[in-house]
Amino acid sequence: MFNWKKILIAGAAATIAVTATAAMAEMMSVQDKRTATMKALGGHMKALSGVAKGEMAASDATVVHAMAVGEIANTITLLFPEGSATADSRSLPKIWSDWSGFEKAAADLSAAVPALVEAAKSGDQGKIGAALGAVGKTCGGCHKPYRAEKKS
Amino acid sequence: MFNWKKILIAGAAATIAVTATAAMAEMMSVQDKRTATMKALGGHMKALSGVAKGEMAASDATVVHAMAVGEIANTITLLFPEGSATADSRSLPKIWSDWSGFEKAAADLSAAVPALVEAAKSGDQGKIGAALGAVGKTCGGCHKPYRAEKKS
Repeated sequence: MFNWKKILIAGAAATIAVTATAAMAEMMSVQDKRTATMKALGGHMKALSGVAKGEMAASDATVVHAMAVGEIANTITLLFPEGSATADSRSLPKIWSDWSGFEKAAADLSAAVPALVEAAKSGDQGKIGAALGAVGKTCGGCHKPYRAEKKS
Repeated sequence: MFNWKKILIAGAAATIAVTATAAMAEMMSVQDKRTATMKALGGHMKALSGVAKGEMAASDATVVHAMAVGEIANTITLLFPEGSATADSRSLPKIWSDWSGFEKAAADLSAAVPALVEAAKSGDQGKIGAALGAVGKTCGGCHKPYRAEKKS
């Protein structure tokens, strides 16, 4: 009845994360929570990207997606307590040996979000794209120095 | 141009939390992050409540609000590291003396969210109200045993 199918396509990862949470909340390790949260963040970014690319129209939901990115950014470093890297984890030891740099990278993400929220409110595809690009750049600020290459 | 003004009224706390994050991310204490996250959670709940009460129409945004509740629930216990209660905090020592009970209460919130997401997708005001009621009950599961009365 609404346009939620498109949201689901774009934000499938976020939905999966929520469902996984319900079943496993009690037994989820910090690494599981980290993975679920990163998938949720990816889902919000993908939904925003769909609007930026003109694949779907901006809507009220776009604003909430942008806010949710900021909410996740706010607490993201808490998902990386020392000692939480397992054999499966792509988290590099540099996260903890350079904790202040890691916190700075997370703060850069937070700092880029309000402009995205404002752009989302305007509903202007170009503004959303520009602000999303600025947010997207900060992803690399963590992923490049602090994350190992994907294991094949 | 969209209906974001209503979202802003309903979700003002969430917006404030995002703005606060941008300015203060680097200097935010865990308690600050906890307060900002609780305000964001409250903002999402209020937006959902507005729909449940018929004050605003269900939309794509309703689904994203519901998902965001689940995402916050997923990581909420990480906002309460031992020793993070200050003189200003309403967090009771029972959080840490009864950590497994606290985790269970958070898991109850997580478990109630998927039904809310489904109800939000349906756009049915009654279903959203019922599912939101079930989610709302779990709030007390933490707030009653683990939170001090508001200081006057």
